[in-house]
Amino acid sequence: MTAPKVNLERVSHADHPLHLPVGFRYAGIAAGLKESGKPDVALVVMDRGAVVAGVYTTNQIVAAPVIVCRQRTPQAAGHAIVVNSGNANACTGDQGMRDAREMTCDVARRLGCDEKQVFVMSTGVIGHPLPMDRVHAGIETAVGSLGESPGHFLAAADAICTTDLFRKVVSRTVDLNGCQVQIAAMAKGAGMIAPNMATMLGMILTDAPIGPDQAQQALRQIAKHSFNCVSVDGHTSTNDTLLLAASGLAPHGNRNQETLSEDQLRIWTEAATEVAIELAKMLVADGEGAARFFETRVRGAVSEADALVIAKAVGDSPLVKTAIAGADPNWGRIVSAAGYAGPAIEVSKTSLRIQGETVFEAGQPTHYNTKMLSEKMKETDEVILELSVGDGPGTASRWASDLTEAYVRFNSLYTT
Amino acid sequence: MTAPKVNLERVSHADHPLHLPVGFRYAGIAAGLKESGKPDVALVVMDRGAVVAGVYTTNQIVAAPVIVCRQRTPQAAGHAIVVNSGNANACTGDQGMRDAREMTCDVARRLGCDEKQVFVMSTGVIGHPLPMDRVHAGIETAVGSLGESPGHFLAAADAICTTDLFRKVVSRTVDLNGCQVQIAAMAKGAGMIAPNMATMLGMILTDAPIGPDQAQQALRQIAKHSFNCVSVDGHTSTNDTLLLAASGLAPHGNRNQETLSEDQLRIWTEAATEVAIELAKMLVADGEGAARFFETRVRGAVSEADALVIAKAVGDSPLVKTAIAGADPNWGRIVSAAGYAGPAIEVSKTSLRIQGETVFEAGQPTHYNTKMLSEKMKETDEVILELSVGDGPGTASRWASDLTEAYVRFNSLYTT
Repeated sequence: MTAPKVNLERVSHADHPLHLPVGFRYAGIAAGLKESGKPDVALVVMDRGAVVAGVYTTNQIVAAPVIVCRQRTPQAAGHAIVVNSGNANACTGDQGMRDAREMTCDVARRLGCDEKQVFVMSTGVIGHPLPMDRVHAGIETAVGSLGESPGHFLAAADAICTTDLFRKVVSRTVDLNGCQVQIAAMAKGAGMIAPNMATMLGMILTDAPIGPDQAQQALRQIAKHSFNCVSVDGHTSTNDTLLLAASGLAPHGNRNQETLSEDQLRIWTEAATEVAIELAKMLVADGEGAARFFETRVRGAVSEADALVIAKAVGDSPLVKTAIAGADPNWGRIVSAAGYAGPAIEVSKTSLRIQGETVFEAGQPTHYNTKMLSEKMKETDEVILELSVGDGPGTASRWASDLTEAYVRFNSLYTT
Repeated sequence: MTAPKVNLERVSHADHPLHLPVGFRYAGIAAGLKESGKPDVALVVMDRGAVVAGVYTTNQIVAAPVIVCRQRTPQAAGHAIVVNSGNANACTGDQGMRDAREMTCDVARRLGCDEKQVFVMSTGVIGHPLPMDRVHAGIETAVGSLGESPGHFLAAADAICTTDLFRKVVSRTVDLNGCQVQIAAMAKGAGMIAPNMATMLGMILTDAPIGPDQAQQALRQIAKHSFNCVSVDGHTSTNDTLLLAASGLAPHGNRNQETLSEDQLRIWTEAATEVAIELAKMLVADGEGAARFFETRVRGAVSEADALVIAKAVGDSPLVKTAIAGADPNWGRIVSAAGYAGPAIEVSKTSLRIQGETVFEAGQPTHYNTKMLSEKMKETDEVILELSVGDGPGTASRWASDLTEAYVRFNSLYTT
């Protein structure tokens, strides 16, 4: 089995012009939290304030920084986001809570704001206390190297990574009925990317004027249709965090008095969702050991929620994942995953297309050329599964990585 | 990574004396449904009748034989069970339904009973019509070779297998307050054992006098505490079937007028559950590519149902499975799987022991020797995880196989 090349056009934006929002400064530096010496402290500062919203892991075991952030979002007067990689500050008890708060206090002291205006994320090994001396020194260095340039933005994006094979940034300019705003976002990998570091972190930064409640509601929508559609290994991390910061300074650095109209907010949310979807797909494409990508598109379910559950069952099934890895159009596994997912399906109206080829129609197998279809699957790094389960209105898509021997090798290594 | 040897004492009973119930005859023959030429038609006949109960896959995509059996259980006058391997008769539409019924008609004609007294199971590839000429010839041969001996019983147990590495039979004699009854059971593998053949089939045969409703209720209890506690890859098959047939002829071949007392039924159910647990553990141990076995014991959950959901989340997590394969005491993965499972847990009362060693206590990591614990895990083929999630009354256990590169290799092969 050879791993098809990752589609670099999709996964790297380093050479594209960045559309950075007004009102943000960035830093990414190495503080010695990673043994490799790679950058591990990122700082994003909104000098003139920003609305900040957050969505977090649904795991009941949550890392200390998640607890701190949850208490502080949504809010109208966010001032900075500090991130460390190399240590998740998870399962670290009371000391972990003190350390997470101390990180925000340290940033607040240096920037002259209140600690409650500072947000914190961590990613890395679980169960080890943060080396706070290094963290403090790192924050000092980061504050000293803040800047607004694309280089500074990319440095921050690098510093939030753990074992990601490439940095993940997406940006664009959006026209909101005549008003130009910028959206720039960064993320780090999820799920399979590493033992003990199965965390997804993300930030969506914009200069659009959005109110706290608008921001929180929009962010939930965005996450639902992007990061929450990603299936790597179904293992929800203790640290997953996605923050949205909106400075409201577009287009020319003046604070807008009014927030977006309903129509503008809709356009903005659609654009931000597209940005988040691009990032989410990068996470999947970057899974250590992942060779091929597949998208499960479900339609005809009773509701959208049902469609999502079905798409998730297909994307999470190890038998489907290994079939995709082997370019095997093994429709029995896919159809039966839909059957055990839970939501009601109409078997006699269930059909499946793999890479455009109908392999199962109205509950019956079709005649197709297995070998040719397998060849078609081998040629792509993004297999499309179109699954119809009835004639209801529910549709949903979910992206997933395949399951390869390399994944298992990577995750079986002795690493605790 | 070396695969520890499967505990043969646990998984092979070929040399043990079989405790066969009164009132059953068996056959297992090769009808040419498998390309390998191995046995593929099994027949179990209850000449003097038997109560038959059944539990089936919860998948909505169900194979034709499951539909036929579901309509016929529980019933008081069962006469025969016919099984074919090599072809699942699943996703085969109307033709599949006709074929499944025809299999029972054929058996009924030859044995002189009604088709409704015959039960059918199939396992093998999905989506291909049964070669009915071979099936008919196979049934004829099977009827001609029926016998009561242990050899006949084992031949039937062999014929229901697909890619199982060893046959799975368990039997014992139970003393029901002075009345001796026999329980003999057979099963074939589940989940990871093969692409397209991820089916669990099982039969529990006994000469205890049990009524149809008693039998159905007991079988549900038995399945809940045995086969439903097994996690191989979480992929529920289209064909999963477990039948219970009770001839009521113990101890001396006379039909008992009375069914078991409540107390006797409790003893019988406990014994049958133990038998089923042994079979269920064999299924996990026989997973193609599985090297190590782990048992997740959850206690302190709000309810038994909650404990089961948590144990399932741990057993199904690919990150936990790969850690077990690598003998890595990666408690962060285990604790966080409990955290995302869904049921409420008390983080500050959550503790974990791996192979007797406390690695997480009251929500905090402990100090333990990682290297020594890994060595301990390497030495066993059955790792015990003891997870306490609060002080509720809910307890549950679940057995799972690890996730190895061999599993992925086996399931990625082009096989459709």
